[in-house]
Amino acid sequence: MRLAVVGYGGVGKAFVELLEAKKSYLHSEGLDIKVNYVLNSRGGVYAPGGIECPALIGFTKTGGNLAQYKYGGSKDITFDSIMKKKDIDVLIEMTPTNKETGRPGMSYIKSALENGIHVITSNKGPVMLAYKELNSLAVQNGVQFGMGCTAGGALPTVNCGLIDMAGSAILSIEGILNGTTNYILEQMEREGATYREALKKAMDIGIAEADPTLDVEGWDTAGKLLILTNVLMNREMKMDDISVEGITGITQAHIDEAKKEGRKYKLVGRTTNRDGRLDMTVRPEKIDKSHPLYNIDGRYKAVRYVSDTLGDLTISGGPSGVTPAAASVLRDLVNIHRGYRYSR
Amino acid sequence: MRLAVVGYGGVGKAFVELLEAKKSYLHSEGLDIKVNYVLNSRGGVYAPGGIECPALIGFTKTGGNLAQYKYGGSKDITFDSIMKKKDIDVLIEMTPTNKETGRPGMSYIKSALENGIHVITSNKGPVMLAYKELNSLAVQNGVQFGMGCTAGGALPTVNCGLIDMAGSAILSIEGILNGTTNYILEQMEREGATYREALKKAMDIGIAEADPTLDVEGWDTAGKLLILTNVLMNREMKMDDISVEGITGITQAHIDEAKKEGRKYKLVGRTTNRDGRLDMTVRPEKIDKSHPLYNIDGRYKAVRYVSDTLGDLTISGGPSGVTPAAASVLRDLVNIHRGYRYSR
Repeated sequence: MRLAVVGYGGVGKAFVELLEAKKSYLHSEGLDIKVNYVLNSRGGVYAPGGIECPALIGFTKTGGNLAQYKYGGSKDITFDSIMKKKDIDVLIEMTPTNKETGRPGMSYIKSALENGIHVITSNKGPVMLAYKELNSLAVQNGVQFGMGCTAGGALPTVNCGLIDMAGSAILSIEGILNGTTNYILEQMEREGATYREALKKAMDIGIAEADPTLDVEGWDTAGKLLILTNVLMNREMKMDDISVEGITGITQAHIDEAKKEGRKYKLVGRTTNRDGRLDMTVRPEKIDKSHPLYNIDGRYKAVRYVSDTLGDLTISGGPSGVTPAAASVLRDLVNIHRGYRYSR
Repeated sequence: MRLAVVGYGGVGKAFVELLEAKKSYLHSEGLDIKVNYVLNSRGGVYAPGGIECPALIGFTKTGGNLAQYKYGGSKDITFDSIMKKKDIDVLIEMTPTNKETGRPGMSYIKSALENGIHVITSNKGPVMLAYKELNSLAVQNGVQFGMGCTAGGALPTVNCGLIDMAGSAILSIEGILNGTTNYILEQMEREGATYREALKKAMDIGIAEADPTLDVEGWDTAGKLLILTNVLMNREMKMDDISVEGITGITQAHIDEAKKEGRKYKLVGRTTNRDGRLDMTVRPEKIDKSHPLYNIDGRYKAVRYVSDTLGDLTISGGPSGVTPAAASVLRDLVNIHRGYRYSR
């Protein structure tokens, strides 16, 4: 399989390293992978027979700029030049997320699919905005669109819903889909910290981003819930269809009240099918001790599906970080190699 | 897809009913299923263009004997006659389990695979005894061997391990794989029941079988652990390789001691890779509050995989019963239709 890796940030680098580290395993799967292109916004590297990845990793690991890479580095290598040559089988699309326009990933993904090239993306934007369209484009062109990384990274929320629940109808989705807020709520509950103190601690140890708004206001959870709902329930819902409330209003008084009731606050994303109409919410919920999401602590994520014939399934785990995210992209690649049709 | 359902007990009947109930969904998947044969030890029904399933379900639901079914019921229809005609694409093998010889399922599965027919089985025996051989036979003949039902039914233990962990190596398996023993331990813990009282209650409400030996002595758990280990870690371990201890020795004193430590007894099946050598045990373990298996109560089952690159994944749920078991067979059928190669 010949790959182009477009977008070469943390996850992109971890992905190329993973391909190298997993070489003998991939051979045992019958997967002979050649990375023909690595591109970022500054330039690109191209080698028709496959880039020497260890050398490239060494160069970029020490801060090297792709455009200056001595073996094939060139500003002339652009996404358009790949589409002209068409000498790849799979586009690994890892450009930065834009949730308003989806660009530039959106146009890269469309181009590749239209040119009969499989796409696996770690980019939430295009999937949130246009999953159904992109999936249809893949079907029309007889290729696969893998996007399991975009709704939970290593936690296989999409794969479990599509493959492990195959043959059943998913009736509801509920999940703790954001590690940062789950960590903050745990700190408030266990350590008696105020919201401000817990947020500061999350920032200090690198769990929360410098601007944690998207996490604590619930938008990150809402984006993942949107993706899961559209992919697993075959819908075309939009962000506007979700009622979103974050955790910024949670006080110690709320936490104490929940504790007295033997419950815990969790930021829950929830889609319920009410006679065909979907009810979608993100909000802090008091979760009972007997609920499968009660014990999902700290940085973990979890999701629970209720189905018609396979009962309910709760999955939890999936560490954060660039290597697990890269491994979730590799998972989709391996499953496509094993014949699984994500796009039908 | 043309099917033969061989073995027509509770799960077999539920499977044929499920195909009927899911007809429009299956059409939407592009799956046009015809049940050409239904067989049990007393006789068989055959219709080259597909049996009228609603009529058959009605007949057998009211206790009708397959051999006397007016449309095509015949003692002449045997497994051998199917193999002669070869007018099926998939064998649904649901004969009773024999864990010593695997027969008759073992020979049915081998015959079908050798004749280029996919097999999906709910029968533990052949999988416990000869998974690697059967899987190789499937590969040689270019067909699939689906056996996800045999290690947890609706709980997708096999599918999660194979597909959701694809591209990573599973380093350890630990699971609560038997609902009966988990229920008994919960009764002892929550209600202060003795082992005898809890067992009696489990029998009264139909969770425990009349002879609960295989469950309470740990053998059911060991069988599932054996299957998961061989399938997910690519081994050929045997039952003799597992150190097995059941829950019959657990007393109220044990339960109280665990409680004082903030822990719970669970019957855990565990496979650990120690520098390439597998250590396999089934035994009651005191599980800590922070462990993902701590909160798996009552009749639920759960399994946790630790991997090299995708971190850890815990799945729980999967109700018991004939319909969920049948739905897990249908799951494998749908995934084979979607192109997934279980046998590689």
